[in-house]
Amino acid sequence: MPTGPALLTDRYELTMLAAALADGTADRDCVFEVFARRLPHGRRYGVVAGTGRLLEQLPRFRFTDDDLAALREQGLTDARLLDWLAGFSFNGDVDGYAEGDFFFPGSPVLTVRASFAEGVLLETLILSVLNHDSAIASAAARMVAAACERPCIEMGSRRTHEQAAVAAARAAHLVGFGTTSNLEAGHRYGVPTAGTSAHAFTLLHDDEAAAFRAQVATLGVGTTLLVDTYDVERGIRTAVEVAGPDLGAIRLDSGDLPTLATRARQLLDELGATRTKIIVTSDLDEFAISGLMAAPVDGYGVGTSLVTGSGAPTAGMVYKLVERDGVPVAKRSEGKNSVGGRKHAVRRHDASGTATAEVVSSRPIAPQDGDRQLVVELVRGGQLCDDAPPRAALAAARAHHQRARAAMPDEAWALSRGECAIETVHD
Amino acid sequence: MPTGPALLTDRYELTMLAAALADGTADRDCVFEVFARRLPHGRRYGVVAGTGRLLEQLPRFRFTDDDLAALREQGLTDARLLDWLAGFSFNGDVDGYAEGDFFFPGSPVLTVRASFAEGVLLETLILSVLNHDSAIASAAARMVAAACERPCIEMGSRRTHEQAAVAAARAAHLVGFGTTSNLEAGHRYGVPTAGTSAHAFTLLHDDEAAAFRAQVATLGVGTTLLVDTYDVERGIRTAVEVAGPDLGAIRLDSGDLPTLATRARQLLDELGATRTKIIVTSDLDEFAISGLMAAPVDGYGVGTSLVTGSGAPTAGMVYKLVERDGVPVAKRSEGKNSVGGRKHAVRRHDASGTATAEVVSSRPIAPQDGDRQLVVELVRGGQLCDDAPPRAALAAARAHHQRARAAMPDEAWALSRGECAIETVHD
Repeated sequence: MPTGPALLTDRYELTMLAAALADGTADRDCVFEVFARRLPHGRRYGVVAGTGRLLEQLPRFRFTDDDLAALREQGLTDARLLDWLAGFSFNGDVDGYAEGDFFFPGSPVLTVRASFAEGVLLETLILSVLNHDSAIASAAARMVAAACERPCIEMGSRRTHEQAAVAAARAAHLVGFGTTSNLEAGHRYGVPTAGTSAHAFTLLHDDEAAAFRAQVATLGVGTTLLVDTYDVERGIRTAVEVAGPDLGAIRLDSGDLPTLATRARQLLDELGATRTKIIVTSDLDEFAISGLMAAPVDGYGVGTSLVTGSGAPTAGMVYKLVERDGVPVAKRSEGKNSVGGRKHAVRRHDASGTATAEVVSSRPIAPQDGDRQLVVELVRGGQLCDDAPPRAALAAARAHHQRARAAMPDEAWALSRGECAIETVHD
Repeated sequence: MPTGPALLTDRYELTMLAAALADGTADRDCVFEVFARRLPHGRRYGVVAGTGRLLEQLPRFRFTDDDLAALREQGLTDARLLDWLAGFSFNGDVDGYAEGDFFFPGSPVLTVRASFAEGVLLETLILSVLNHDSAIASAAARMVAAACERPCIEMGSRRTHEQAAVAAARAAHLVGFGTTSNLEAGHRYGVPTAGTSAHAFTLLHDDEAAAFRAQVATLGVGTTLLVDTYDVERGIRTAVEVAGPDLGAIRLDSGDLPTLATRARQLLDELGATRTKIIVTSDLDEFAISGLMAAPVDGYGVGTSLVTGSGAPTAGMVYKLVERDGVPVAKRSEGKNSVGGRKHAVRRHDASGTATAEVVSSRPIAPQDGDRQLVVELVRGGQLCDDAPPRAALAAARAHHQRARAAMPDEAWALSRGECAIETVHD
C-alpha cells in the first residue's frame, strides 16, 4: 500500500508540468477553481464534503524516492521534472467553502492560488476527494431530510470500495446520519458505530430462539433482534419471549416495510413491548424513507443508495484554471464555457434569515444585510490555517452543516426533481 | 492511514462473533457464498473482478494492538472477543470463479469454508472489494465491446474516491482497456499509463501555438494535442503547423463528437497529417462509444461513466451462510429466498465452443462435453494457492477474461437492455 497520495494523480498533470518547466511557464501565478457546472438532474442543492480529508492528505503530498522510481519506470524520465518533484511541497494558498456548506451551480467550492506547477499537481486528488465525498453527502442530506427527526444509520460499506466506505460513513455523519456500521470510520473520525446481527447469525443456530438467546446474553436486552429470517410474526413473538418487554428494537430487512412495520408495532404492543423500537433496512433510499413517514418506524438503515449517491455517484466538480498572472482566462470552445477570474461568493438571506441567492462574482461583492461570506481561508503558504485533528474537523463541519441547513428555504427539502433551492446570481 | 484492513469491517460482524464465542457456536463449520441474485437492470452479463485485490489483503487481515484499542474505544470490550481477535488469522479455505470470468444470477462467485468466527469476519471486506471492482469491470467490458478493436483509455480517477480510482483502473485494464491515467495503478499493477495535457496547459500560455510548441518540445511530435480550447479548426491547423504531419494525435473533448471527428479527419488529411490519430473524450459511455463507430475515431477516453459503473455502481453481490455443520441453511422469509448448500458450477458450451448455460448445483454436476469447471481453489488452510505478485495476478486475470470472452455468444455484446446472455440452470 502507498504511504502518501502523490501517485493518486493523473499522468497528464506531470507531462504538463514537465513541458511547463521546460519553457519557463511553470512559475506563472495561477488560480485554479473547483466548481460544478450543474447539479445532478433535478437536485435542489449539493453539500460540500471532503475538504477535511483533503487537508489531511495535503501535507503528505510529497514525492518520495519510491514514488520517483515509480515515475521513471513509467517513462517519466525527464530530469528537470524529477528534480522538481523531489523538492516539491505545496506552498500555495487554498480558500474554499467551509465543509458541510451547501453549493449550487457555479459556487467556487475551492480555490487554489499557486504557481502553475504546484496547482496543476493537486488537481486529481482534489477532485477525487471532493467529487466522491460531496456526492455521498448530497445524497445523504436528502435522506436525513426525508427521515425528519428519525435516526439514520449508515451501513453501505459492503457496496462500495473498502476505503471509499470509510469516506462515505464520514460524509453521511457530516450531514446528520447518527451512526455507521464502519469500524474504521469510528476509529479515524469518531463516528459512532452501530450493528448487532445478520441472518447468518440466526442460521448458525439450531433455531431462532437459540440465536436470540445468544445475542441477548452477550449484547443485553437493549439489542436489536433481526426477526425476518423465517416468519416475521413468529420472530417477533420469539424475540419478546427471549428478551422480555424491554427488548431494545427489532429489525425488518425484507418484505413490504410499511405493512410489516404496522403489523409489527401492533404485535409488539400486544406483547407489552411498547417501547421496543422498529428499525427498517432493505434497499432504502430517500424516496423509500419518505414513503415510510406514516409507518411506525423508529430508525432507517441505509446502504447501497447512500454509498452510490442515490443515482448521482459523483458530484461533477471540475478544476479549472481561471486566472494566470492576474489575467482571467477561460476555455471558449462550444459547450463548456467557464467564467474566468478568481471568485467571491456570498449567500444572501432575507430578513427572516432564509437564504435567497448564491451571489458569485469575479469582483468584490457589495455587502447587504443578511449576507454570509462563503469562502474561508484553508491554507496559507502551504500551512493549514486550522490543524484540527480529523475528528474535531468532522465535528466542526457537522455543526456548520446544521447552521447552513437551518437557513435553507423549505423548497430545498422537496425530493421531487426541480430547480435549485436558491439561484446562483453572477453579479 | 490504517496499515491493515481489519477495521474495514461492519461492527455487526464483531457483535455476532462475540455472541457466538459466548455460546459455543463460533466454531461450527460454515460455508459462506458470494453471489448476485440478479444483474443490474437489462445487463447481459457481469464480470468478476477484485479477487486479486482481496487475496492481496487477506494475509494482512489481522488485529493489531492499535486495532484492538480502537475496538475497545468503540465499546467492543468483551474480553473473550478481544482475546480471540488478537490471535486471529484466517485458516479457512476459499474457492471462487477465476478473476476476469463472467458471472450470472446465482453464480457462486466466491465460497468461504471456515468456522463461523473466521468466515463472518471477512464478509464486509470481501463484499466491498468484489462489489466495487466487479461493477467497474462489468461496465468497462461493455465499453470495450462497443469500441470493437479501438483502444480505450481509463481516465476517471477524478470522479471517484482516490483509492477506488486505483481499483477502477485495475478493473478496466482487466477487461481490455489499454491504458489508464492513474499513476498509482501503473505502479502497483503495471497498468500502462497515458496522458498528455489539459485545457489548463493551453490557457497557461500566451496563445495556443506557444502551448503546443512547449508540449511538442518536451513530449515529442508523437504526443496528443488538445485542440478544442478555443476553436477546433484553428486548433488543428495550429497543431499541424507546430508539430508537422507526423503529429501523433489530436484530442477532442467537447461538442458534437461524430461531426467534429469527421471534420477533423478531413482537415488533418488536407494538411497532410494522414496518420495523425483522433482521440475523443467528454462524458463517453458505452452508448456514446457505439454511436461513434462510424466516425473516424482512433481511441476513446472514458472517465465518469467508467468509474461509476455506467448506471450500476455496485454489483449487488451478497455473502450468505449456505451450510452449517454440513447441513444446508437458507433464509426463508419473503422476498429474499436463497438456495442453501455449497455449490458446484460449470459453464456449458455447444460443439462450436459457444457458452450455452451456467449450471449451478448443490450436488456434483454430471460432466458433459464442452463443460468448463468455473470454481478454482484460491486459499487452502489460510494460505494463498497462488502467491503471484499483484502485476502477474492482473495479467493472468486479463488473459483469462479474454478466453472466457471468446466463448460468449454474440447476444452478450448487445448494449440494449435484455436477458442474460446465458441462462443459469439450477441442476
